[in-house]
Amino acid sequence: MASNSFLKFFLPKDRIFFTLFEQVSERVMEMGKVLRDVVDEPDFEKRVALISRIEDLEHENDDLTHKIFTELGRNFITPFDREDIHYLASSLDDIADYIFASAKKINFYKINPVQDGFHRFAELIHQGTIQVNEAVKELRNMKNLRVITDAMVRINSIENQADDLFDMCIERLFEEEEDAKEVIKLREIYQVMEIATDKCEDAGNVIESIIIKYA
Amino acid sequence: MASNSFLKFFLPKDRIFFTLFEQVSERVMEMGKVLRDVVDEPDFEKRVALISRIEDLEHENDDLTHKIFTELGRNFITPFDREDIHYLASSLDDIADYIFASAKKINFYKINPVQDGFHRFAELIHQGTIQVNEAVKELRNMKNLRVITDAMVRINSIENQADDLFDMCIERLFEEEEDAKEVIKLREIYQVMEIATDKCEDAGNVIESIIIKYA
Amino acid sequence: MASNSFLKFFLPKDRIFFTLFEQVSERVMEMGKVLRDVVDEPDFEKRVALISRIEDLEHENDDLTHKIFTELGRNFITPFDREDIHYLASSLDDIADYIFASAKKINFYKINPVQDGFHRFAELIHQGTIQVNEAVKELRNMKNLRVITDAMVRINSIENQADDLFDMCIERLFEEEEDAKEVIKLREIYQVMEIATDKCEDAGNVIESIIIKYA
Repeated sequence: MASNSFLKFFLPKDRIFFTLFEQVSERVMEMGKVLRDVVDEPDFEKRVALISRIEDLEHENDDLTHKIFTELGRNFITPFDREDIHYLASSLDDIADYIFASAKKINFYKINPVQDGFHRFAELIHQGTIQVNEAVKELRNMKNLRVITDAMVRINSIENQADDLFDMCIERLFEEEEDAKEVIKLREIYQVMEIATDKCEDAGNVIESIIIKYA
Repeated sequence: MASNSFLKFFLPKDRIFFTLFEQVSERVMEMGKVLRDVVDEPDFEKRVALISRIEDLEHENDDLTHKIFTELGRNFITPFDREDIHYLASSLDDIADYIFASAKKINFYKINPVQDGFHRFAELIHQGTIQVNEAVKELRNMKNLRVITDAMVRINSIENQADDLFDMCIERLFEEEEDAKEVIKLREIYQVMEIATDKCEDAGNVIESIIIKYA
Repeated sequence: MASNSFLKFFLPKDRIFFTLFEQVSERVMEMGKVLRDVVDEPDFEKRVALISRIEDLEHENDDLTHKIFTELGRNFITPFDREDIHYLASSLDDIADYIFASAKKINFYKINPVQDGFHRFAELIHQGTIQVNEAVKELRNMKNLRVITDAMVRINSIENQADDLFDMCIERLFEEEEDAKEVIKLREIYQVMEIATDKCEDAGNVIESIIIKYA
């Protein structure tokens, strides 16, 4: 702690972290895009291929995240606080996990995802990952506080919309679905999707706090 | 890390953190009080007004928490470890979130909350927030280890009682409620209430560890 | 942060942390062993005695964990980063919590645990705790990176097997169990068991990152 400010003079040495975080957030954004395709695809087998694409991206991200932690262990100097690198890597990893879980559970529970609720959730998640990627790109220069502020406003709005959407989906689910086992399955997928947008907000908050410290 | 002990000489400069934490914990305590009113109010519409009061307090706390993180980014010197400020702000925020979620879900699921289980849960949560507020107030002088020790004994006892109460409520629920959809709804509210008391314990633990370090 | 490398010269002074972590991880391993007995025991009352044994170990671990945090507050010099001590203590504590919760919920929900799914889960959890214990023992010398790497390969494999086992159990549960209330109960126990293996992986990751930093 208490040693933030002099560390910034060492920034140029640690470009590797920016590159790794950008590679992770680009893959997370791509996962959000493919999730939209998953929930708009009525055919189970065609969804298998899309979910498998998400899984591949998730594995790539696991490798990149592992590399971030290895670099963290090896580097005496880091471009921003070690704990912030840890938080950011974990929160991007969480977004990826929840996107993959959303996609996987749809086929696992043999749900037909083509319905308004899933469509809107996937759209919000994709928008969230786009804003997170915008924010991650700002880490490299850490000068334009405006870009991150704008991204955070959008991420917060997305997360609020996802909260409302979740409530609407759950309310409708309890009203319309008679089979309690189906309620359990659908509720679980809505929850996982809602958490995906929470995790976008978490990642945004970490980035915002880093940029406020160093700007 | 490893620089705790000399930092305490700088304490007088950072009173802002104590004030902010006290403002947060007072609002959390007030939320606990209003939650008791919610679960004792049989009328849906009257509950709407009470839940709205909790929501207002929650928004005030969000602003105060954001201010804590902004101050954390701006201040080179902090009254205690940056990570402890982070943990404490997050754990107080969590208590607020779970109290608000408890209240909100009662009307959302159109549950009549006037029953022994909810009454006792709200009472435990309120007592927990009172003890957390006591502990937060001790941060300012950090001299009387006894006050925090007493508060922690009470918080731990509250959390244990909440565990037992949860088990009792769930056992009764599975025995008496035939409709599995109702089981899902009530179980979710009991869980959220039980977590609220866990979060009081988390906040207490953070405060205790800070005071042990600096006392 | 940024002060890792010179701290290692002070290692000899802080053997207490190694001893405490080893005592915790031995008890966690013993809890994993008794959990295997719980799920193979068809008699409710005989399970009561086994679950009570797990509870005793859990209480011992709570005391040891509390001692770790107290030592953390009292010691200016620590054998590795304060935040890593915090993470490791929390993650070992989490394993213990989830093992105890698994055992407790079986009798609480009056489930007969003698079935293939529970048997295999308990076996994986026990294996996970053995590997975590191996990893914890390596902290003391921090020289043989190979031992920790091997343990991590096994922990990751265990966690992957637990994921697959969870999916298999849930799929079978939704297919074979008609009573949605029973679905809720069994699903909860499977989830808690699966999380126990996740927590073994978390603990392993923390240890690996510590050893990479100091090796």
